[in-house]
Amino acid sequence: KVLWTVLVTMLGYASSLPVGEDALCTAEDLAKYRIIFTGKWSQTAFPKQYPLYRPPAQWSSLLGVTHSSDYSMWKKNEYASNGVRDFAEKGEAWALMKEIEEAGEKIQSVHGIFSAPAISSGTGQTSTELEVHPRHPLVSFVVRIVPSPDWFVGTDSLNLCEGDHWMEEVSVDLFPYDAGTDSGFTFSSPNFATIPQDTVTEITCSSPSHPANSFYYPKLKILPPIAQVTMVKLKKSQLGLSAPFINLPAKSNEIIDTVS
Amino acid sequence: KVLWTVLVTMLGYASSLPVGEDALCTAEDLAKYRIIFTGKWSQTAFPKQYPLYRPPAQWSSLLGVTHSSDYSMWKKNEYASNGVRDFAEKGEAWALMKEIEEAGEKIQSVHGIFSAPAISSGTGQTSTELEVHPRHPLVSFVVRIVPSPDWFVGTDSLNLCEGDHWMEEVSVDLFPYDAGTDSGFTFSSPNFATIPQDTVTEITCSSPSHPANSFYYPKLKILPPIAQVTMVKLKKSQLGLSAPFINLPAKSNEIIDTVS
Repeated sequence: KVLWTVLVTMLGYASSLPVGEDALCTAEDLAKYRIIFTGKWSQTAFPKQYPLYRPPAQWSSLLGVTHSSDYSMWKKNEYASNGVRDFAEKGEAWALMKEIEEAGEKIQSVHGIFSAPAISSGTGQTSTELEVHPRHPLVSFVVRIVPSPDWFVGTDSLNLCEGDHWMEEVSVDLFPYDAGTDSGFTFSSPNFATIPQDTVTEITCSSPSHPANSFYYPKLKILPPIAQVTMVKLKKSQLGLSAPFINLPAKSNEIIDTVS
Repeated sequence: KVLWTVLVTMLGYASSLPVGEDALCTAEDLAKYRIIFTGKWSQTAFPKQYPLYRPPAQWSSLLGVTHSSDYSMWKKNEYASNGVRDFAEKGEAWALMKEIEEAGEKIQSVHGIFSAPAISSGTGQTSTELEVHPRHPLVSFVVRIVPSPDWFVGTDSLNLCEGDHWMEEVSVDLFPYDAGTDSGFTFSSPNFATIPQDTVTEITCSSPSHPANSFYYPKLKILPPIAQVTMVKLKKSQLGLSAPFINLPAKSNEIIDTVS
């Protein structure tokens, strides 16, 4: 039992940046970041069952939160909350926003909530600002894969604090997760509730190990990243609207690498 | 020509709150508001051609900006920008975000940008915070009606400043607008670009005056509001995440009035 706990902890460390204990962040001030989400879900990279119609491949709104380690929005191998289920299955944000609010009220574990507009195609970008606090240095967010049964991408407790300072820039490749609440195998599967609910699992090119799965590519070792997120620290002089946007391309898909 | 200008100005005053001249706002500080958008697009209120499938009736992400009278996001009887066209037709926010950015950089007419998550049904709510500034007291936003050719709701330059103070609470009923860029008549019309582009027009129960139009209800005098927006000023002590949410219902559709 102890060994298992250690193992899970290590897996947690390996699958994202370390979850910082609050006391370890000794940065003095708040910090603001621009967060840029880039969809890389192209038909070239993911040819199997690529959704072209009603709806075509796209991304939901992004919903995120900055928080302490006392709060968790979602976690691999744990059960999704009702809010995450509603968001992953339907893109419905309200219940998740309420959960975050309650965590903020009851245990002061939340600093702020942020959202960015949806992206109407599989490749493209969206962006917003977020603020972290020395006691709330962790960033979690979710973006629903549309269409899909209950699939999403995101970060779980990404720590932007490194000891006594804030990181200048962080980029993370994102891979698909299954919220464990709908048993559909393919992007356009009809709704089919998973009872009992399963835990949140990563979807890989070999798992679920079934040829019907939309991400099952038996010849690949790993899936290409389906999305990427970059957080760039804003200088004090850049606070306010205009500066953070500078140097973003005119079209949201111009800086997308060709993934193949 | 002069008379016409006066008339248009008066119509502008009638259809939304007055567009304040920047100099008239003498409030001392910034103010923060919670903005709550409520979709009232029910099958009961809008039975004609109500979209039930692929996609069912829903609302896009909300994208908004706080600004001075030197900037306009969209305006009735004027041509929609490319950014508003992309957003109204496809829910694609990037070009509009770039336009806002450029207005912020070039003419300092923008204070901040804000967005709130999409709503996955015709009735429901979404919410976020926004900040206004004495030189940038106006609020404009858009939410795309999904599905639709290029229809949206929103506010144009809603002034939250009244002389030397900020308004405590503002509620506005919202009615559908046509961005003038797609000639589809019904919610699920195929794309059909309007060439040359038309201006932004309000859609009423009698205009466009054609029985095929999804909002054509010849027996009604006016459409019921299809949505509503409320902005509530946050007390200084409420700044931060938790307080602004207090008293919102657990489910986003619990406080929706029955419209019939």
